[in-house]
Amino acid sequence: MKIYPIKGIKLSSIHSGMYRKKRLDLSILELPENSIVKAVYTKNKARSSTIDFSNNNLKKKSPKYLIVNSGNANAGTGKYGILDIRKYCGELAKVASCNVNDILAFSTGIIGERIHADKISKSIPTLYKNLKEDNWLNLAKSIMTTDTKYKIFSKRIKIKKDWINVTGVAKGSGMIKPNMATMLSFIATDLDIDKTSLSKIQKSATEKSFNMISVDGETSTNDASVIMSTRQSKLSYKKLTKKEKEKFINIIYEAHIHLAQKIVNDGEGATKFITINVSKCSSYKEAKSIAMSVGNSLLVKTALFAEDPNWGRIISAIGNVETKEKNLSKYTVSFGKNLVFKNNYRSKNYDEKILYKYLTNKEIEINICCNTGNETATVWTSDLTYKYIKINAEYRT
Amino acid sequence: MKIYPIKGIKLSSIHSGMYRKKRLDLSILELPENSIVKAVYTKNKARSSTIDFSNNNLKKKSPKYLIVNSGNANAGTGKYGILDIRKYCGELAKVASCNVNDILAFSTGIIGERIHADKISKSIPTLYKNLKEDNWLNLAKSIMTTDTKYKIFSKRIKIKKDWINVTGVAKGSGMIKPNMATMLSFIATDLDIDKTSLSKIQKSATEKSFNMISVDGETSTNDASVIMSTRQSKLSYKKLTKKEKEKFINIIYEAHIHLAQKIVNDGEGATKFITINVSKCSSYKEAKSIAMSVGNSLLVKTALFAEDPNWGRIISAIGNVETKEKNLSKYTVSFGKNLVFKNNYRSKNYDEKILYKYLTNKEIEINICCNTGNETATVWTSDLTYKYIKINAEYRT
Repeated sequence: MKIYPIKGIKLSSIHSGMYRKKRLDLSILELPENSIVKAVYTKNKARSSTIDFSNNNLKKKSPKYLIVNSGNANAGTGKYGILDIRKYCGELAKVASCNVNDILAFSTGIIGERIHADKISKSIPTLYKNLKEDNWLNLAKSIMTTDTKYKIFSKRIKIKKDWINVTGVAKGSGMIKPNMATMLSFIATDLDIDKTSLSKIQKSATEKSFNMISVDGETSTNDASVIMSTRQSKLSYKKLTKKEKEKFINIIYEAHIHLAQKIVNDGEGATKFITINVSKCSSYKEAKSIAMSVGNSLLVKTALFAEDPNWGRIISAIGNVETKEKNLSKYTVSFGKNLVFKNNYRSKNYDEKILYKYLTNKEIEINICCNTGNETATVWTSDLTYKYIKINAEYRT
Repeated sequence: MKIYPIKGIKLSSIHSGMYRKKRLDLSILELPENSIVKAVYTKNKARSSTIDFSNNNLKKKSPKYLIVNSGNANAGTGKYGILDIRKYCGELAKVASCNVNDILAFSTGIIGERIHADKISKSIPTLYKNLKEDNWLNLAKSIMTTDTKYKIFSKRIKIKKDWINVTGVAKGSGMIKPNMATMLSFIATDLDIDKTSLSKIQKSATEKSFNMISVDGETSTNDASVIMSTRQSKLSYKKLTKKEKEKFINIIYEAHIHLAQKIVNDGEGATKFITINVSKCSSYKEAKSIAMSVGNSLLVKTALFAEDPNWGRIISAIGNVETKEKNLSKYTVSFGKNLVFKNNYRSKNYDEKILYKYLTNKEIEINICCNTGNETATVWTSDLTYKYIKINAEYRT
């Protein structure tokens, strides 16, 4: 994938020593003046101090720097959390001649241990010196924790002879659930766009992407999704036609969905990528609840790991959602195009051999048609495997 | 454990052939006239036809027989579900000279396959012939599916020179979650008690027991908890003193909690029995939500399997519950008596060596003190292990 830098954004990554293994674990990102930044955060009450710090700063003014580390979440660190952030952000402010309030901080990693503010501080002069536009890949690599693959998206579209670039990175593989996850994402564009429009597009894109994935039903302490515009393109959102606006919105959606899917694909121990489509439902909320109930079901996820067309577990998961329906008589369930459930029973053409074969695919679709309305929702999830247990039973040791 | 028969209740169990392996898989239970029966059922919309059948019959009149099978859940069987039940209950009605509406039916096992009504019907004459009072243990054995141990409770208390007997059985090991589970329970007493009092005691006992356990967060299609009184004791509930009433209520609670804990103890693949106590909370609802959030967390359950004192995962699970608190600064978390979390951070006396040792116990207590009120809740759960995956990935094959 070709990576298009975003004009005005400079990045730098380093091995600060947060991990014993020599790997990138700390990045800074510099934004040009007049940039616009919006963020959505975890709602977890045990949230990291970085969330409070960044949220406060972002309310006051437009940030000049983002600093992101992996290896330590700086959550469950009591009063030390904010003290440590102020320490290393103070160092960055000094080196970059800005104010501590001009910085947003993000962390991911282990909970409950003080962050090595000194190691971060020590790395800042070198980081600052090495800032450059063409450095997104290293950002993607530096934010990985249990991730096995870095996650990056980059694309540009041409409008009226000018280019709009969109580039973003994300991390996440466990503790993944709706309303964010242990995930961080940073997506940037150079289109000149106003705050209100960008915020609106972000919210909608987040709802259709990061809020629609589930690996293990956990919501983390550190989740944050950040969108940035440097406004350095000659094109202005306000002056675009309706169709051009849609083109831009779609690429932002694409960035979010691409990164969200990459997170599921990299789900801890996952061997399957599962798409759950709920259609013809009486409301979006209900469609999402049904898709999530199936996507979060351990019994469904273990059956898919075993490549077993155990649709009974799917209908049981659907049946657990509160709806106006008294039973599932209106619903149909298919694996891909293979109808398995109709009229409250196994479908007439049910052929277990075909299903067994279908389930050997790495990518599996579960299609649920409610026949109660016209709303749809799609959730992406992974299977539940021995390796998930292994990773999470051994993560700290 | 000595098993006290309940005067007037006769039971009989048989191998009907629902399982290939020769084991008990079908039972009937006969109730004397004037018995009182109450039941609570699963709220799953994909519920078994047995639930509708039994619910309807119980509304109309007091039942004379219960028929229970394992091996097939008779759920997701469309119009055949009720047809098949009527078929074998018709046979029982014929043999026992009663009406189909005098029977309650319960099933547990695989979803989505028609039940072998013929095999059941064929077994009924023998079952009927062998009915006897001292047969509770076989009932307990015949309702097992993935259960590795049968679950039975029996106790009697003396009041005014007379005995009140309470005996019950249960099944369940996976698909276990609040608001019932893949669990069946049948608890009986001979105390002469009115319907309203029995129903009230049952509801409260269920809330404190079967609704407070979680193995995998799944609620099944077939759950039912049945309480019966034959009213054949000389003692009448109405004539008991307040203290004697409490004594009776407590034994009913004990029966429910004992059986609920046995289910968790037999949780699929479980190696740990985990008690989560939430205390000093602003409401019971909130206390239960917090305990359940911790008890359902895959990350907590895998950490406990690994005997890893990863309290970060516990506070993250607590932080996901909607409360009025903005953060966890009032909360403390302990493993047993060992305080690990206070003032949003690791406690001062935190000693990982002691914790590692504590977590080698089979029975583990997580104590969460909210300091926001005076309500308490206790949830029982198990750890999440390789074996859970194995059992559920291989259940159908």
